[in-house]
Amino acid sequence: MLSFRCDYAEGAHPEILKRLTETNFEQLDGYGNDPYTRSAKRKILEACNCPEGEVHLLVGGTQTNSTIIAAMLADYEGAVSVQTAHINVHEAGAVEYTGHKVLTLPQHHGKMDAGELEAFLAASAADPNKDHMVWPGLVYISLSTEYGTIYTRAELAELQAIAHKYDLPLFIDGARLGYALASPACDFTLADLAGLCDVFYIGGTKVGALCGEAVVFTKKAPKHFFTTIKQHGALLAKGRLLGVQFDTLFTDNLYGRIAANAIDRAQEMIAVLKEKGIPFFLETPTNQQFVILENNYMEALSSKVGFDIWEPYDATHTVVRFATSWATTPQKIQQLRELL
Amino acid sequence: MLSFRCDYAEGAHPEILKRLTETNFEQLDGYGNDPYTRSAKRKILEACNCPEGEVHLLVGGTQTNSTIIAAMLADYEGAVSVQTAHINVHEAGAVEYTGHKVLTLPQHHGKMDAGELEAFLAASAADPNKDHMVWPGLVYISLSTEYGTIYTRAELAELQAIAHKYDLPLFIDGARLGYALASPACDFTLADLAGLCDVFYIGGTKVGALCGEAVVFTKKAPKHFFTTIKQHGALLAKGRLLGVQFDTLFTDNLYGRIAANAIDRAQEMIAVLKEKGIPFFLETPTNQQFVILENNYMEALSSKVGFDIWEPYDATHTVVRFATSWATTPQKIQQLRELL
Amino acid sequence: MLSFRCDYAEGAHPEILKRLTETNFEQLDGYGNDPYTRSAKRKILEACNCPEGEVHLLVGGTQTNSTIIAAMLADYEGAVSVQTAHINVHEAGAVEYTGHKVLTLPQHHGKMDAGELEAFLAASAADPNKDHMVWPGLVYISLSTEYGTIYTRAELAELQAIAHKYDLPLFIDGARLGYALASPACDFTLADLAGLCDVFYIGGTKVGALCGEAVVFTKKAPKHFFTTIKQHGALLAKGRLLGVQFDTLFTDNLYGRIAANAIDRAQEMIAVLKEKGIPFFLETPTNQQFVILENNYMEALSSKVGFDIWEPYDATHTVVRFATSWATTPQKIQQLRELL
Amino acid sequence: MLSFRCDYAEGAHPEILKRLTETNFEQLDGYGNDPYTRSAKRKILEACNCPEGEVHLLVGGTQTNSTIIAAMLADYEGAVSVQTAHINVHEAGAVEYTGHKVLTLPQHHGKMDAGELEAFLAASAADPNKDHMVWPGLVYISLSTEYGTIYTRAELAELQAIAHKYDLPLFIDGARLGYALASPACDFTLADLAGLCDVFYIGGTKVGALCGEAVVFTKKAPKHFFTTIKQHGALLAKGRLLGVQFDTLFTDNLYGRIAANAIDRAQEMIAVLKEKGIPFFLETPTNQQFVILENNYMEALSSKVGFDIWEPYDATHTVVRFATSWATTPQKIQQLRELL
Repeated sequence: MLSFRCDYAEGAHPEILKRLTETNFEQLDGYGNDPYTRSAKRKILEACNCPEGEVHLLVGGTQTNSTIIAAMLADYEGAVSVQTAHINVHEAGAVEYTGHKVLTLPQHHGKMDAGELEAFLAASAADPNKDHMVWPGLVYISLSTEYGTIYTRAELAELQAIAHKYDLPLFIDGARLGYALASPACDFTLADLAGLCDVFYIGGTKVGALCGEAVVFTKKAPKHFFTTIKQHGALLAKGRLLGVQFDTLFTDNLYGRIAANAIDRAQEMIAVLKEKGIPFFLETPTNQQFVILENNYMEALSSKVGFDIWEPYDATHTVVRFATSWATTPQKIQQLRELL
Repeated sequence: MLSFRCDYAEGAHPEILKRLTETNFEQLDGYGNDPYTRSAKRKILEACNCPEGEVHLLVGGTQTNSTIIAAMLADYEGAVSVQTAHINVHEAGAVEYTGHKVLTLPQHHGKMDAGELEAFLAASAADPNKDHMVWPGLVYISLSTEYGTIYTRAELAELQAIAHKYDLPLFIDGARLGYALASPACDFTLADLAGLCDVFYIGGTKVGALCGEAVVFTKKAPKHFFTTIKQHGALLAKGRLLGVQFDTLFTDNLYGRIAANAIDRAQEMIAVLKEKGIPFFLETPTNQQFVILENNYMEALSSKVGFDIWEPYDATHTVVRFATSWATTPQKIQQLRELL
Repeated sequence: MLSFRCDYAEGAHPEILKRLTETNFEQLDGYGNDPYTRSAKRKILEACNCPEGEVHLLVGGTQTNSTIIAAMLADYEGAVSVQTAHINVHEAGAVEYTGHKVLTLPQHHGKMDAGELEAFLAASAADPNKDHMVWPGLVYISLSTEYGTIYTRAELAELQAIAHKYDLPLFIDGARLGYALASPACDFTLADLAGLCDVFYIGGTKVGALCGEAVVFTKKAPKHFFTTIKQHGALLAKGRLLGVQFDTLFTDNLYGRIAANAIDRAQEMIAVLKEKGIPFFLETPTNQQFVILENNYMEALSSKVGFDIWEPYDATHTVVRFATSWATTPQKIQQLRELL
Repeated sequence: MLSFRCDYAEGAHPEILKRLTETNFEQLDGYGNDPYTRSAKRKILEACNCPEGEVHLLVGGTQTNSTIIAAMLADYEGAVSVQTAHINVHEAGAVEYTGHKVLTLPQHHGKMDAGELEAFLAASAADPNKDHMVWPGLVYISLSTEYGTIYTRAELAELQAIAHKYDLPLFIDGARLGYALASPACDFTLADLAGLCDVFYIGGTKVGALCGEAVVFTKKAPKHFFTTIKQHGALLAKGRLLGVQFDTLFTDNLYGRIAANAIDRAQEMIAVLKEKGIPFFLETPTNQQFVILENNYMEALSSKVGFDIWEPYDATHTVVRFATSWATTPQKIQQLRELL
């Protein structure tokens, strides 16, 4: 059945499978100590224009978030995020499992407001009870957000400036970074990003890889981060699986090109949804679109096409998400057009 | 360079890559809710003759060990293992990171002695200070062990009986289970194993998969184990990556057949090593062999063939490990013969 | 200087010091295995009319909260509380440090609304992503609350019914339980409380003891709770320090009598504050009163009498707290009257 | 019944109870922000001749150990101790509960051997798998040890030199520090100790206080250690309870004087035991003495005098411990003499 449920419904870009197959019988050292992983790291640092940075390849998003956060926080610190942040809602408490609180701010279509961040950090620093409270230890945002929205360069710079003013690193969860960067609404590049935060990751799982998230510490990784990865169960024995994938994604800008496909298809999908008169809950510049469906119609439609139920809208309507991906073809958008 | 360093130097069995490629563009639900994962689980339960069991697919060994152990222990409990157990030495304290102590017994070529286990559990239960101490909560063994040795059916039955006498589950780390089962010295089958323990896993990473460990709870999984997997960062969005691999490995007994290759090659390798007069530190019935090399000879050899430095033997000799795998060819054994 | 800053400014009720002194040279077993601890437990269960319950004596509030919560939750569960709950704000993330998330609801003068609890639990149970989320594992309320307010018997019964409907225990943080029970507005007794929740504690630190919180599991304590106490660093070697104190507090209802003093003084203090025309932010039925002071006046007053700065009210006013205690004398209220 | 079971059988030194009573109705700020706590800290730093150090008062030993260790270790580090260390055996896994492994060395009457420490640290640093292993993060010793033995000044200096060579702090658990310092066999003073380690604590619970352990960071406390104390549930609201006790213990060297009583009585007790022909398992220079009793004799004796059963000696004999304390009188030693 046709599905727009998410951006991880297909496997990997065929070039990745081809490279995995071509290199399959080479005998390589484990744990990331192989030439493909080294090459991938080099290419990523080049693409980020961040020669002094450090790259680590992890397997999945929740794992990457909790490993980075635990590595960057002291025991008495927590991560500051918006209420709807993935780490706060949909990661089964993985951050708290490592002993750290998530300190939350209001969200605005999934985004953090710089003024609210500053007010929160100022109030924390001024609180007479601050020694009895969790210390803010880093600022976490996602890009694109859980709502498909993106930050402008100026917004990122402002968030970073505020975070640094309070000596906190800014961490960008880039599980869907490709789709943000490929959006015409995005006014910065991957090469800019390293200057706008302290650590981010380049999501592979949702942008054409079987699995894998490439973490970029823009200055310096936390001490013994390799051991931390191992301790979190995030170290692959066959590191080549991640190395070959990211080496392929960062050859000839495959990552950027396939992300752009998702955005092109999303624009076509928006046009189709509008043509059919389906009201938007939130139209976004990336690959996730949120529309409002009448419940009976939704029920009927769900037998023909996959989408993600987001949240109730009112007694008779529901917000649903349609997502495109690196693998969505123009044909599929046409099929959707016929089914709506 | 020719390598016998470990059993995860190559990628995956070609049939796995073929199946990943064939199914690549099918749009599948995530998080293990796809038909390949379901099929893999079914086939594994059949192979284990354990219809009432429950299978979960995780990514790597350290992750699987700490996830299972944390899920099965109460906060006040620890895991009982031998001193050389992987969880006690080479997992960066992943078990302790989840809050649990590893309680250790002496090792005998990597194996736990049933009498020593019983004595330890009896002493724990009788200790007047036991309420001030970590309670033994499960018994962990590896099969084959870190030293390539295996347990007999009678030994497993005895360990299980003792564990159960003290109300503890027996957990078998099967990262190298395939190589144990394929050994001519092994007097039990995979179908027997479910009756001999409470939970075990079937290692994929070291036996022909890119990654993946199939956990089998022989009776019942811990409550909400899916959420626990997520919380540990061990849940793949593209669960198909694990599903397709294990479905392939458990079709026509591919898993058993490729494990047998490693054992056949190991037997040939033992013959070569003996022919060359290289003294054994430990000759095992599985795919890992431990020999003693004079240090200058070792140094020279290491530029021509890969092996794993295990531990110093004396001032002028070192114990090294040569391992075969599912991918080792008879030609490679011949190459080794010429290099020694 | 005269202080109404909090209810733990003085040491202990003199009877407690007297009994500590009288029993000082008796040689007693440690860790709570002494006759005074046993007697205290017995008297508390009698006062609670809860013969089948189980009592444990811990040292302080934060410690007690995190120990109980960790003992009652599975790893995948969190504690449900209001936003302003002590565990969520002022315990330095002690609950998260044990690996558990605090799931928050809005507060109403510090209280949880039963309807909002039900809506939250119903939504959690119905959430299609619930397996990726922290499971609600217990309901935490404080009594009296951080705002000095109390629940009615009907409100507690409703909260309990909702919690039980979802198979969750109800846990009452009673750091200030004495002051709730002594309030004329309170429509239940300590003997009723055991029927209204699954676990609660009787705060000693804020009601006349040097330290100590008496935890009452109304049905059954979690397995090996003694070991859990030890593991949390909450077990006193000289358990007699807690035993003698609670034995004294529960002899001839000393606990109830001294708590009543705080309430009587609070009523007098309310009258004085009103007489002086000081506007109330929140007038409560217990020992904490919240008033609004003009900032210059507050500054001047603070050199003569101690109070607690709560939060800004507007640009020129501040909310401050005046608290009475078991030790507040009528003379001190008169002194306050003269200083205002 | 007469008891030599432990050194915490009585309450507090009468001077402590007197001071608690005298200061009882002073209204003091909480959480250690009172003049008695400040005075105690000042006196302790003076006694330690460590003006640039920092003192914190915690409640009990297990709590103090796990709080200090967690505060001083990075997540990827563990504590190095001997096998019989209190943290490794009798603290219910409190250190592991904070996420850290205890790495163990052999013990020699409870002591760590400097050569073995050096060999362990050298091997750790040289291990080719060290990135997959827990990093040694601090060295923990107890003084006097769990076996009543003490280190010489030279031994401490050597342990410290080795620890520092590997960039590790040396932590001394001083739950029984008073009894070590008071021993005629001790060749260093409290004032020397600050130069011999990075952090230690002065045990109050076992040396005349109702509770309390005074932690001395000889250089600098870990950042936000106050918050860490709170997070561990180790912060007393009525910090005066600890402040007054340690202020009293460090006035006119009360601490040293009452510890000396235990040593004097222990010497008398040794003489009595020898006079009665009771064989020693371990005669020590401090307040704990270990003797071997025939089992029937032990049984009979146990109805008349309390002692601690340590471990089986052989089939018909048991090792038992007799401990004196700050409160042991010459009369009690005479009573023991008559009962043996």
